[in-house]
Amino acid sequence: MSETVSPEIAPSPEMTALDLQGWTCPAPLRDRDNIVMGHGGGGRLTAELVEHLFVPAFGAAGPDGPGDSAVLDVGGARLAFTTDSYVVQPLFFPGGSIGELAVNGTVNDLAMSGAVPLYLSCGFILEEGLALRTLQAIAAAMGVAASAAGVRLVTGDTKVVDTGNGDGLFVNTAGIGLVPAGLQLGAEHARPGDAVLVSGPIGLHGIAIMSVREGLEFGTVVESDTAALGGLVAAMLAAVPGAVHALRDPTRGGVAASLNELAAEGGFGVELVERDVPVPEAVAAGCGMLGLDPLYIANEGRLVAMVDSAAADQLLEVMQGRPEGRGACRIGTVVNAHPGVLVVRTGIGGTRIVDLPLGEQLPRIC
Amino acid sequence: MSETVSPEIAPSPEMTALDLQGWTCPAPLRDRDNIVMGHGGGGRLTAELVEHLFVPAFGAAGPDGPGDSAVLDVGGARLAFTTDSYVVQPLFFPGGSIGELAVNGTVNDLAMSGAVPLYLSCGFILEEGLALRTLQAIAAAMGVAASAAGVRLVTGDTKVVDTGNGDGLFVNTAGIGLVPAGLQLGAEHARPGDAVLVSGPIGLHGIAIMSVREGLEFGTVVESDTAALGGLVAAMLAAVPGAVHALRDPTRGGVAASLNELAAEGGFGVELVERDVPVPEAVAAGCGMLGLDPLYIANEGRLVAMVDSAAADQLLEVMQGRPEGRGACRIGTVVNAHPGVLVVRTGIGGTRIVDLPLGEQLPRIC
Repeated sequence: MSETVSPEIAPSPEMTALDLQGWTCPAPLRDRDNIVMGHGGGGRLTAELVEHLFVPAFGAAGPDGPGDSAVLDVGGARLAFTTDSYVVQPLFFPGGSIGELAVNGTVNDLAMSGAVPLYLSCGFILEEGLALRTLQAIAAAMGVAASAAGVRLVTGDTKVVDTGNGDGLFVNTAGIGLVPAGLQLGAEHARPGDAVLVSGPIGLHGIAIMSVREGLEFGTVVESDTAALGGLVAAMLAAVPGAVHALRDPTRGGVAASLNELAAEGGFGVELVERDVPVPEAVAAGCGMLGLDPLYIANEGRLVAMVDSAAADQLLEVMQGRPEGRGACRIGTVVNAHPGVLVVRTGIGGTRIVDLPLGEQLPRIC
Repeated sequence: MSETVSPEIAPSPEMTALDLQGWTCPAPLRDRDNIVMGHGGGGRLTAELVEHLFVPAFGAAGPDGPGDSAVLDVGGARLAFTTDSYVVQPLFFPGGSIGELAVNGTVNDLAMSGAVPLYLSCGFILEEGLALRTLQAIAAAMGVAASAAGVRLVTGDTKVVDTGNGDGLFVNTAGIGLVPAGLQLGAEHARPGDAVLVSGPIGLHGIAIMSVREGLEFGTVVESDTAALGGLVAAMLAAVPGAVHALRDPTRGGVAASLNELAAEGGFGVELVERDVPVPEAVAAGCGMLGLDPLYIANEGRLVAMVDSAAADQLLEVMQGRPEGRGACRIGTVVNAHPGVLVVRTGIGGTRIVDLPLGEQLPRIC
């Protein structure tokens, strides 16, 4: 890192000091004045960066609330607008590449707000020396993924940084979608009694990345689940109008982070039944070997849904009828008890609290 | 750069080989298989990357045409949508920081399509170890710039890469604007006889960056011109409806790149009168010292316009009445001769061709 900042033009000493008192105890941090890997993990450290640094710094120009997409009224249309940067390593992994992630990840953020994903931008930051063939393969993967998701890559930008100041390729995509008139989704629409559904087996993306990064083998090749979920969401919304209350794609921080966020935003508790959570054998093996909890592992083609429990079976049938929802099942319930807290009922009848992760167990997973 | 790609999952050998024959002679490149700094320069190399790599790779999911913003019909609204990543070094410089650039640059891309800029996304890629105070200062600069430009930062994302795989801070912003009904701007609407206007003195941003990066002094502190141009554009469009035909913000590649692009897209020639181009003394001194042409130097708060010549004086008066257009003047004419070519009439009565730059004379300028 080369921060060549002249003293005259660096942040001025009069600038309001950051009030670090309210931040999480920096137990894993040697230094509380600097960015650590966990700030990019999508867990508590990321949330604190947003709450204590970005929101005050942006001031009146900042966002209205949390959530992966903003929903905006523009010229009479109700738009969803979202962005994600992708820094995954390695760039290629079983089941996909950073190209598929960059399309599907942003498409899915739009879909979770109920929007029909329409258009993506893409901004590349390339490191000098990157092979053109590598870039070509990633761009081709983006084109195929965009076609499959029914979106178009309509505007872009390319920057190049000198060797040693990047990591091959980073890519940002921002996305625009159209939210159907009258549709309301979000934690504030979920309520105690709602069924909690997941659209398929969890943990595949994170374990696929770890398997190539660490050269681990879990008896079988684990492939990332990266997929676009716009079609699945549209089918769910059409099947039982009004029955879907909240959606989230459990990427960084996994199912645990998504359900913790929904519980906190909605002011309710969530209870999962551990034996109902679909964890593939290879994911269980990988998690065992690495000392990880599958509920914290990133997914890139899954959603969790809070739905009217009377409609849960019908919705599951619709989900299971599509390739990206084949493994859909019910994993828990929204409850009145322990608001803001995710509790898992274990196989032997006990319960354990599954907290929002602090950082990310697997850095640079997406 | 760590491209840990297993042979099984790397780009397959069957992938269509890149046809490099049509590309510019890679005179400054030792190696034509890899990304070089010039691919991020906004000149010919960038254009070739788009034409020969991105457009074929994206296929049917790709963009319709060139231009800094896409104009899209979404739910009955006419939207402009654009993106830029910012990798400037140093992060702070006289007149601003990467924060102002990230807001104003994207706002200006929207404004050049005639859109009223409304909403920005922001995606940070932070390097582990970045000082929180540095991030706070940059985010605060973004908030102030967004308020000044009348836009809101409504959605964001933060990723962290390990030390040595980034460069302190990169930030991407994407933007949405609303294009007034019936407004048509672009090279195809300009025509021979149009006056070419510039909104103020050129070259200040590039020379400001070079002065701090190289520790050069040019007799006076040169400050970046970074500014949002949405208000200036709105005033121009309102002053003489239909008189403004094409707008471009001359960032990377400078006025030369913008006018070359417009000439190529519109199929006309452009003639500038060198003595009419407003080059501040310090920029002329800096360019002399560094062997650069001010027409190629990046600006971050300027626009060039092709306008009905009968309305040019009235438009200049409107522009000069606003702080960001105070130095506006006429610098040339759209001509029938030499289509696609920018020619400069020199002080001694000769002419010289000013071509699209190959790469960027000043890397990482924005």
